[in-house]
Amino acid sequence: MAQLLSDIARALGGELRGADTLIERLSPVESAKAGSLAFVSHIKFAKHIGNTEASALLVGPSLAELASQKGPCIVVPDAYVSFAKLTQYWRAVHAAPAKPFIHPTAVIEPTASIGADATIGPMAYIGSGARVGSGVRLGSHVVIESGASVGEASVLHARVTLGENCIVGSRCILHSGVVIGADGFGFAQQDGRWIKIEQLGAVRIGNDVELGANTCVDRGALDDTVIDDGVKLDNLVQIGHNVHIGAHTAMAGCAGVAGSAIIGKHCTVGGGAVVLGHLSLADNVHISAASVVTRSICVPGHYSGVFPIDDNASWEKNAATLKQLHALRDRIKKLENS
Amino acid sequence: MAQLLSDIARALGGELRGADTLIERLSPVESAKAGSLAFVSHIKFAKHIGNTEASALLVGPSLAELASQKGPCIVVPDAYVSFAKLTQYWRAVHAAPAKPFIHPTAVIEPTASIGADATIGPMAYIGSGARVGSGVRLGSHVVIESGASVGEASVLHARVTLGENCIVGSRCILHSGVVIGADGFGFAQQDGRWIKIEQLGAVRIGNDVELGANTCVDRGALDDTVIDDGVKLDNLVQIGHNVHIGAHTAMAGCAGVAGSAIIGKHCTVGGGAVVLGHLSLADNVHISAASVVTRSICVPGHYSGVFPIDDNASWEKNAATLKQLHALRDRIKKLENS
Amino acid sequence: MAQLLSDIARALGGELRGADTLIERLSPVESAKAGSLAFVSHIKFAKHIGNTEASALLVGPSLAELASQKGPCIVVPDAYVSFAKLTQYWRAVHAAPAKPFIHPTAVIEPTASIGADATIGPMAYIGSGARVGSGVRLGSHVVIESGASVGEASVLHARVTLGENCIVGSRCILHSGVVIGADGFGFAQQDGRWIKIEQLGAVRIGNDVELGANTCVDRGALDDTVIDDGVKLDNLVQIGHNVHIGAHTAMAGCAGVAGSAIIGKHCTVGGGAVVLGHLSLADNVHISAASVVTRSICVPGHYSGVFPIDDNASWEKNAATLKQLHALRDRIKKLENS
Repeated sequence: MAQLLSDIARALGGELRGADTLIERLSPVESAKAGSLAFVSHIKFAKHIGNTEASALLVGPSLAELASQKGPCIVVPDAYVSFAKLTQYWRAVHAAPAKPFIHPTAVIEPTASIGADATIGPMAYIGSGARVGSGVRLGSHVVIESGASVGEASVLHARVTLGENCIVGSRCILHSGVVIGADGFGFAQQDGRWIKIEQLGAVRIGNDVELGANTCVDRGALDDTVIDDGVKLDNLVQIGHNVHIGAHTAMAGCAGVAGSAIIGKHCTVGGGAVVLGHLSLADNVHISAASVVTRSICVPGHYSGVFPIDDNASWEKNAATLKQLHALRDRIKKLENS
Repeated sequence: MAQLLSDIARALGGELRGADTLIERLSPVESAKAGSLAFVSHIKFAKHIGNTEASALLVGPSLAELASQKGPCIVVPDAYVSFAKLTQYWRAVHAAPAKPFIHPTAVIEPTASIGADATIGPMAYIGSGARVGSGVRLGSHVVIESGASVGEASVLHARVTLGENCIVGSRCILHSGVVIGADGFGFAQQDGRWIKIEQLGAVRIGNDVELGANTCVDRGALDDTVIDDGVKLDNLVQIGHNVHIGAHTAMAGCAGVAGSAIIGKHCTVGGGAVVLGHLSLADNVHISAASVVTRSICVPGHYSGVFPIDDNASWEKNAATLKQLHALRDRIKKLENS
Repeated sequence: MAQLLSDIARALGGELRGADTLIERLSPVESAKAGSLAFVSHIKFAKHIGNTEASALLVGPSLAELASQKGPCIVVPDAYVSFAKLTQYWRAVHAAPAKPFIHPTAVIEPTASIGADATIGPMAYIGSGARVGSGVRLGSHVVIESGASVGEASVLHARVTLGENCIVGSRCILHSGVVIGADGFGFAQQDGRWIKIEQLGAVRIGNDVELGANTCVDRGALDDTVIDDGVKLDNLVQIGHNVHIGAHTAMAGCAGVAGSAIIGKHCTVGGGAVVLGHLSLADNVHISAASVVTRSICVPGHYSGVFPIDDNASWEKNAATLKQLHALRDRIKKLENS
């Protein structure tokens, strides 16, 4: 399954420098061996170029000189973007071309519609009136509830649940255990008891969206929960009801967005961060990992709020003092006025 | 599927003011259109009443005057509670009456007992000696392990796992991916290795409990983990072994409760909050989102502990200074004593 | 199903003091009744010994005198370790010996290999070229994708997904909803859009590993994600791509480790804690619950970083002042220099 470096260069639209060679695998530059093609996308990893055992390197213009002294290389305008495309190329040439099939154990209701060349995995379930687009691939045990719809060429891995009337666009990837369209968390309180607010909306997911394993997107209460084109959510992310996530926003693992929050386009939310309900984030807002957004953010930028980690004894002292901080401020004021 | 406003008023026990009209949908007041019935439950949304395109409004006594000047309205004692009941009414009149069925692909062990009018979805599995109450609805791929029991009229959505000997009460709703009765996280340490403590207890869940998608409730080590009546847990919540959650307590998404914690009745725990193991929370304790409960709380009230979010540069300065806070206190003391 | 105390003592290699008696159940010392065997592993629980209704106690040497005055007891070198072994003994003598079976509804591709005495649950799916070791038990709806492998005597509970080419060692326990081998979260950015980096690595899990319900371990980008022998992860834990977790490390519920982090051996990570990407933790590092690791930690020890919880009003004051902390430090400096 080895590929010629020259073929790879051509596929990436890059410039081949040095002799052609056979590439057996893609590797990180630190652990590359003979037969490896490795990429170096940032100047801070340039130090690895001298020592790598890789047979060839993929680099940007600034490292082209250094890399070509070392051996064969492909030079591209943006090494990281080309690396991404290289992984796609590698997968395409190595993955066995999967012939579409509908597994005989899948249960498909008569009123469901299945597009051309769709693959329906073992023991998948497709409910009444559901629509599965052409070229869609559903893994084993996927559940598409009644009235739901999956756009063309989307991939739903094993054990994804797509709830009633929810919509997934084209070329999406939903990883195992994703739950789209569970009820939003809505209750009114009466005499100390919670009265359920039926969640009558659905979920609408755009094109080119990727959702990580066991991530949940709740259906809206009255209107829909909306995830726009190109959004990428990592594993175990929670999206509450009536949230709107703007196009090309990304959120890392375990992030949570509470109900009715509006997140702009091109935002990033770090792992474990929390956005409280009914807040708005402007476009191009970046939230650090584990930070808690407690107010709307209208100005693009980078925001953080994390207690700094320390050895436990130091933390205990500082945390205890923190409970007196407001009082300490008053003592400073008093000193200043004395 | 439109409903007369007068029929809705009657169903809610509310007072109809103004002309009767046909209601086609329920809508938030901001996005309501002709044909919409919208609710306004709080004075702070009163500003929307003048501009809404809704055909009718659902309001409480304090907004009755304003709303009835605008057009037809239903006046009720508590608009939010009546809105909740309205969503239930709307679902009831619009959902096709589901006829009970046992799907032929479901696997039911001979010693399981299935109540009258239960629905067992495609490819569900019911283990030996399990009991499914009357009117229960199990979605596709639900797993009820041996000896487990589901009370009448409960709904388990697709892909819920109910572990061996665990009990779910009546009228509960468990969303997709819920796991009840995985082993609690218990190990003894010996020579640097972890020795498993077999989890011999089970999980007991009361009536009218709702658990969100992918939420986990672990079985107890010796005694059971217990969730009392009316508890509502959002998605991706983690409940450790031997936890006891008091009646009518609610927890938002991604909250976590460590082993053997005792949570009172009528508590609320915000999204992403953590309660450490072996702690107790009194009744009517309210924990803010993302706060960490590190000590038992015996006094009802509202508790918080979150690092305030800031622009990243300001946060960096303040977080760095925080590591010197205890030393700063000493410097203030010294200044005071000089 | 009662057991003689003397038989239990023999099984544990402990010393029986006092009269033999029939043990009907294992109980916590606080809630033990006649017929219960309870353990007291720590001096702080010694106060319960006088009042317990337990028929017998399991204790270490330091509590042997006190316990034997109260009644029959088993004395062992380490009561907590022996308690763990006691739960294993109890399960072994009480669990019905499960005869291996391959359920007729399981779907097994012809090129998969199934070891001797393996159990394959209802509606499980085993892909092409997958290998299931001898004595393995797969619950209902388990998905083993093509080329994946499960070592001997491992248990995969209902609804575990093991992705393509991923490897699980021997004697592992994977709880319901675990997802091994979803794609790592890797994208390059080009013109404001995310370009997918195909995740070409896999996941390799050692022996004696336990993973909690709905926990996710992503596949590596180029190299594999690796979890070493004896690691224990609780529920809803997120392990990013190319993470390496050293042997006998344990992480509590909702912890998250971002991509390419290297965690040492014998570490513990508390519930809800976050380790950022590309960091290293030395062996024997202990991270408190809900703490955020933002830098590599090279020195063994106990580290924390949590905002202390307080009544909401006090928190609000202190949190507001925290945003001025750096400025307060400057004011203290000025006072000192005046």
